[in-house]
Amino acid sequence: MRLDLSIPHLRAAYLDGTLTPAQLITQLHAAMLAEDAALQRNIWIRRLTLDEMLAYASALEGRDPHSLPLYGIPFAIKDNIDLAGIPTTAACPDYAYTPEVSAVVVQRLIAAGAIPVGKTNLDQFATGLVGVRSPFGACRNSIHPDYVSGGSSAGSAVSVGLGLASFSLGTDTAGSGRVPAMLNNLVGLKPSCGRLPTTGVIPACRSIDAVSVFALTAGDAAAVLAAAQGEDAGDSYSRSFGPYGHNFGAANSFRFGVPRAQDLEFHGNPDGPAQFASAVQHLIDLGGTPVSVDLSPFRAVATLLYEGPWVAERYQAIRAFIEKSPGSLHPVTRAITEKGIAITAPDTFAALYKLKDMERLTRPVWDGIDLLVTPTASTAYKIAEVEADPIRLNSNLGHYTNFVNLLDLAAVAVPTGFMGESMDHMPWGITLVAPAGQDLPLLDLAARLHARAVPIVGATRHAPHRLPGATPDTKPFPSGLVQVAVCG
Amino acid sequence: MRLDLSIPHLRAAYLDGTLTPAQLITQLHAAMLAEDAALQRNIWIRRLTLDEMLAYASALEGRDPHSLPLYGIPFAIKDNIDLAGIPTTAACPDYAYTPEVSAVVVQRLIAAGAIPVGKTNLDQFATGLVGVRSPFGACRNSIHPDYVSGGSSAGSAVSVGLGLASFSLGTDTAGSGRVPAMLNNLVGLKPSCGRLPTTGVIPACRSIDAVSVFALTAGDAAAVLAAAQGEDAGDSYSRSFGPYGHNFGAANSFRFGVPRAQDLEFHGNPDGPAQFASAVQHLIDLGGTPVSVDLSPFRAVATLLYEGPWVAERYQAIRAFIEKSPGSLHPVTRAITEKGIAITAPDTFAALYKLKDMERLTRPVWDGIDLLVTPTASTAYKIAEVEADPIRLNSNLGHYTNFVNLLDLAAVAVPTGFMGESMDHMPWGITLVAPAGQDLPLLDLAARLHARAVPIVGATRHAPHRLPGATPDTKPFPSGLVQVAVCG
Repeated sequence: MRLDLSIPHLRAAYLDGTLTPAQLITQLHAAMLAEDAALQRNIWIRRLTLDEMLAYASALEGRDPHSLPLYGIPFAIKDNIDLAGIPTTAACPDYAYTPEVSAVVVQRLIAAGAIPVGKTNLDQFATGLVGVRSPFGACRNSIHPDYVSGGSSAGSAVSVGLGLASFSLGTDTAGSGRVPAMLNNLVGLKPSCGRLPTTGVIPACRSIDAVSVFALTAGDAAAVLAAAQGEDAGDSYSRSFGPYGHNFGAANSFRFGVPRAQDLEFHGNPDGPAQFASAVQHLIDLGGTPVSVDLSPFRAVATLLYEGPWVAERYQAIRAFIEKSPGSLHPVTRAITEKGIAITAPDTFAALYKLKDMERLTRPVWDGIDLLVTPTASTAYKIAEVEADPIRLNSNLGHYTNFVNLLDLAAVAVPTGFMGESMDHMPWGITLVAPAGQDLPLLDLAARLHARAVPIVGATRHAPHRLPGATPDTKPFPSGLVQVAVCG
Repeated sequence: MRLDLSIPHLRAAYLDGTLTPAQLITQLHAAMLAEDAALQRNIWIRRLTLDEMLAYASALEGRDPHSLPLYGIPFAIKDNIDLAGIPTTAACPDYAYTPEVSAVVVQRLIAAGAIPVGKTNLDQFATGLVGVRSPFGACRNSIHPDYVSGGSSAGSAVSVGLGLASFSLGTDTAGSGRVPAMLNNLVGLKPSCGRLPTTGVIPACRSIDAVSVFALTAGDAAAVLAAAQGEDAGDSYSRSFGPYGHNFGAANSFRFGVPRAQDLEFHGNPDGPAQFASAVQHLIDLGGTPVSVDLSPFRAVATLLYEGPWVAERYQAIRAFIEKSPGSLHPVTRAITEKGIAITAPDTFAALYKLKDMERLTRPVWDGIDLLVTPTASTAYKIAEVEADPIRLNSNLGHYTNFVNLLDLAAVAVPTGFMGESMDHMPWGITLVAPAGQDLPLLDLAARLHARAVPIVGATRHAPHRLPGATPDTKPFPSGLVQVAVCG
């Protein structure tokens, strides 16, 4: 049985004295070795050694668990985010450097008591939604190893799914914190841009990057957000948010936007339509009123991200490096990134105007709804499929995620079911989207939906998200999980 | 004596029946002919004929002056803003087209009763702060014809200064609505970007353009703003603003930022320091507390506008035209604009990051002040001087204006005095600056400062801005004006 690392579970054990951080780290280290022995999933670029982890645990000795909201909570870090003394590679070995200080979000989490356990694999320079564009090997899915983990925050999702970390940090510019959440049966919080500062994070598209959180439950994600959020002097894009007004997530009734039938795209996934309908029904049962929404201006923004000038930000982020040693890049990453230098400033402004036009078209939509609901990803792909068709299938996975950051929205990906046999019982989910600042109402609603919709979290058999009084799900345990659940 | 076209003066005459719009237009037409006969100042690209103006006046017949806030008020329009049926040239004859509908701001003003009187000369495509970059001739200053009018909204300022229009529309991206205001002894309102929609206006830098207002008094500018402001569906950059909170402009005490001594630059103008000190003293006398402000991050933004990618917006705005017939452009305008195409998208984003950094550095400044005060322009130049050194002297004039739109600020240029004999008694003034949305407090303070600081408006001998109870100015009438005031 995999470890139950949910934050309330660990916290209860720490508070009643039945567990110490050092004990947990020792168990966790054994679990990591067992996962390695069972299957090489290419989760880690640099896992911390037992001693390195124990050093963080020792630092908590003598501290009162009550005083630290994340006391003894293990977390994984995407390897484009600095952890002091450990190399940051962004999945590009030639680019590696060893930072002296941790990223500000990491500093805040450690100060809150959390324990880093390793740096995780990613699509190189966070360019991709698949998790296979890495010289450290394709990251295998936690539920079914033939499938992609999703990316770019690949190992961050898989490590939490397998019970090797309570939560993890990812980054999410185009969907990298949401697509892997769905594919690993996790909650993926893509906070309002700037809510988690990016100081010490290698930029992808700096103007629209967000640090993201993978967690077993929405409540865990909220606890992480609370400990790490807020403005930082080193990040001019960082922001603080005031109170959010009406908490639609906790309300007995709310209005949620649902794309029109013609806006839905599942890229051949036979189970997508029924899965989405089922998720919508759950929201109705929770008190939601569906409102039909024309998704086309949102989709126009998504297209803009792919075809527009923002790829030039990726170039700018690693400009000195790519100009010096272009051959050091993964060929797919290089091909995508080098497009950025050919784009002109007039074209850039033309795209910014178009974004502004689309933003104006989407604005009235928010007058009629509290949140917008879409599939998180249309479907799930196998690693072999993506390797055969790397660009197109990657784009397909971003169909519903690409517009979110450009339009300054917050999003939470929530697991809502498992697909059928033809899709190997892979998990499926929806994303709840609302204007920036609405992170907490989104998380509240995510918690209610999650508890109602699926019985287990990640690739574990644990159900820590079950709230007292939530309706038990009567569906049988998905058969596809059994094979995995006995590993480790 | 030039006409007193101040809005309250005309309105009183209309309301008590001693004047009709047709009578005013007839007098105005005569005044225009007299100005032409006195001196060719190159104010107009296309003045309306008497019949064309009278057609607008007739449309008001039978309407109740009470119901129209700008009933019978004549206004001039910069020739990069559409007036239905009259060619728009942007001071580039080969570019000209004849619009079927007026720009939205013009429509709103006409609907409020205002009467268009002509399209005014400008620095071609609104690129410049001097008013000499036009194939229609250098626009001569209304106070002293050897001096530049300032630009790019050259003729718009001069027409109001000479009493040929009650107010005029300009555009202001880098200072084009403020520098000419100072040089012609007028109030120049550069509203919050987006407050006046730009639909039907040829863009300069679309992301930071503002339609601006030249007026005899701050009260007149406020009346124009009230009639023309508000969101427009055709302009995605247009915005509506809510209430502004504390009205520092009407308060008995307020805090105003003053650049440190080392931040002040007058480009050799011997009268600048004393003029600025005198303006600051007026504000102190009005209840203001000066607060020393480090202007360097603001200046860094100003430099960014000149050296950064925003010039690419100017290229993008006329891209099809400049690519087809580059030889149709004024050589200075062409040289500046063509720089835009050589700028890359990565460099564009790098500049946007830098702007964001500077914006963050300037943010705390606003916690300590209600408004920032700077000279409007450091000095005044003669036409011959600018023709001999067209780029550098133009840049000098924008020293205090370039940062305003990039930082999303509102500004009002206010006349505060006349310089000495060595500067040919040219007018001088300061600009009041505050965050977007604070237009009305700025105008309220501008009205109080204006009434206190200078006895007359424009190149007229009229003092319509005198408020009841304001302290009369005891300074002698500036001798440099006498020569001009007898013309026309």
